[in-house]
Amino acid sequence: MAANDSTTSQRPAELDASKLVVTTLAKRKPLPPMESLVFGETKTDHMLIINYTPATGWSAPVIKPYGPLSLDPMSSCLQYSQNVFEGMKVYLGTNGEARLFRPNDNMARLARSAARLALPAFNPDELLALIKELIKLELRWIPKAPGCSLYIRPTIIGTRAALGAVPSDSACIFVIVTPAGPYFQGSKKGISLLAIGENIRLRPGGSGGHKLGLNYASGFLPQTLASKQGYDQVLWLLGKSEKVTEAGAMNLFFAVQRRDGDVDLITPPLDGTILPGITRACMLAFAEAHSTGKIVLPGVPASLKLHVHERPVTMGEIDVFSTQIGRILEVFGVGTAVIVVPITRIGWRGKDIVLPVHEGNGLGQIGHGMWQMMVDVQTGKTQFEDWSVVCD
Amino acid sequence: MAANDSTTSQRPAELDASKLVVTTLAKRKPLPPMESLVFGETKTDHMLIINYTPATGWSAPVIKPYGPLSLDPMSSCLQYSQNVFEGMKVYLGTNGEARLFRPNDNMARLARSAARLALPAFNPDELLALIKELIKLELRWIPKAPGCSLYIRPTIIGTRAALGAVPSDSACIFVIVTPAGPYFQGSKKGISLLAIGENIRLRPGGSGGHKLGLNYASGFLPQTLASKQGYDQVLWLLGKSEKVTEAGAMNLFFAVQRRDGDVDLITPPLDGTILPGITRACMLAFAEAHSTGKIVLPGVPASLKLHVHERPVTMGEIDVFSTQIGRILEVFGVGTAVIVVPITRIGWRGKDIVLPVHEGNGLGQIGHGMWQMMVDVQTGKTQFEDWSVVCD
Repeated sequence: MAANDSTTSQRPAELDASKLVVTTLAKRKPLPPMESLVFGETKTDHMLIINYTPATGWSAPVIKPYGPLSLDPMSSCLQYSQNVFEGMKVYLGTNGEARLFRPNDNMARLARSAARLALPAFNPDELLALIKELIKLELRWIPKAPGCSLYIRPTIIGTRAALGAVPSDSACIFVIVTPAGPYFQGSKKGISLLAIGENIRLRPGGSGGHKLGLNYASGFLPQTLASKQGYDQVLWLLGKSEKVTEAGAMNLFFAVQRRDGDVDLITPPLDGTILPGITRACMLAFAEAHSTGKIVLPGVPASLKLHVHERPVTMGEIDVFSTQIGRILEVFGVGTAVIVVPITRIGWRGKDIVLPVHEGNGLGQIGHGMWQMMVDVQTGKTQFEDWSVVCD
Repeated sequence: MAANDSTTSQRPAELDASKLVVTTLAKRKPLPPMESLVFGETKTDHMLIINYTPATGWSAPVIKPYGPLSLDPMSSCLQYSQNVFEGMKVYLGTNGEARLFRPNDNMARLARSAARLALPAFNPDELLALIKELIKLELRWIPKAPGCSLYIRPTIIGTRAALGAVPSDSACIFVIVTPAGPYFQGSKKGISLLAIGENIRLRPGGSGGHKLGLNYASGFLPQTLASKQGYDQVLWLLGKSEKVTEAGAMNLFFAVQRRDGDVDLITPPLDGTILPGITRACMLAFAEAHSTGKIVLPGVPASLKLHVHERPVTMGEIDVFSTQIGRILEVFGVGTAVIVVPITRIGWRGKDIVLPVHEGNGLGQIGHGMWQMMVDVQTGKTQFEDWSVVCD
């Protein structure tokens, strides 16, 4: 056979944004009123979709009207849960421009998650270019009210249509968007957690360090039990020492008063059991920048030093801290959905560890400063590194 | 509002086999030749499907031509991996009748798995009645050759079409079937395992004790690494003591020679980390029945006592056993797909622990006796308990 035989020597096609084909919806949907917005329920006009097969590689990307996927009942995504996703947001900037926040980090994590489940590799830069095209088409769905954004959900599913329990050789990337209001509406100040150790969602060496669909499903039953006991979310504990991992799908921070007047800011380490959150990384960078005088967190005295500690935190330790008056200043959860949210109490061993709740939205000085800084960078009011990326 | 208002006081409908609606394929597909049969790739003529919504409950069951499912991109099954399944087989009996094997156990485990992922409950007896209807329609797909069967894959997926990370309030049960040849064809004798501890697939208190799609996906990358090193499957180790859990998706048995002439049959305990396999339960029952004289395992002396031990087994222990000449008699994996298969070697800490391989299909006296007994009961040649259920 000739070496240049075109049918056999062709390599599977790479993901290529320049091949994009766009089919728009003839009549756009009416925008929902802000008051009725429930997170993740509104379907916009369009979606992005790209298919992979071992023979052809990545198909020409398609943006088309939002609609159902047609999947063989044997598909890996339905049988063996080969699904990964990302959560990211696009914000309206101070001049009305659309702004993504650290989108390269989301793309890099999506690529790592796909590799962890042995899904086909893709070029993250090409996918980001395609997501920007989708955003341009869906711009009118970003709510204008403060604290609102358009949530973006890139998803990769295994589409091998056979029951053998082997990695999927086929896949589908799809990206959908949905308008998001502020996480908390009304008078609610913060959330309560129930500490649960029996149903281990994440574990060292497992898959907790990746954003996989399968990290969520086994947490639903414990979440239901927590709700029935009057707690908002589950705090996942690990091992006999009851190390704190994540709360719901948020990373956790503990601000503890030091004797020298400074503050220790403690968060569990990235040991493979917790998600390497992008908001978490922002908190660490902001604390460092504030303490070295590079920035001043809004509302936080420039003289207040924040000492960052990425180290294991046990429930016993939190219990001891909470009994020492004035020792625990603030406990907050962070993530793309909530940005920063105060934790009001933790149910543990049949009792409640009550945590400080502050005026206004419940956040203390440090949590509020972090939240304000995030919003200011996300909307382009403040520049920090190259984190805010205008979508043009 | 009146208490008997029919639109609000109605409870969601229970799963009801009597409501079945059947639509048959006009022109049945040609049967594939036995030689070309690859497990899990053949799609038969029909499938069973039932949908659940919180408002209506379980829909009237439908048997219809095999075809794709239409799923919203936000569906829980794609985003949060809320998927469970079962694997069961129907065999041709000695008189040409279709026989299920312990189907109530599969239905009970499916119900437990669904509950573990907070999926809607269903009546297992009704589902089994519906599966029997599907089998009757697909009877011609059971291959006639010895060792063949029709594999049945009941699946439940979460179909809530919204991105909030909460349990799915909607679901779809679907059942597909596919013809299966003997697990091993050709001259291959048994399989090799690579012991892996770093990627923990299963863990105490987690979900390893249930048959969930999400227990499979995180094992695909380690499986790929094992294949590259020349091993057939992964042996999953747990904890610092390197306890043996499962191999691939099989339960494991170790037959060890005792000083008194009897044999210890050792298998890891059901501590929540391993699947409570139905074939595993059969092995334990057969060993007990043989040792008490209730049955004689084919080819095994009636005088040979098998002492069953459900207890943790460590890699260190297997290593020591293997160095004592004649101590390890047989190591085999068991499951619905393989029934009984010999393990030839285990890669561990850079070396191979070589295990005894016997004449014929590689199985030793005990493994072969277990395999023959299973086949005899599955095909109705031998009666044992009420395990074989004629599908009439």
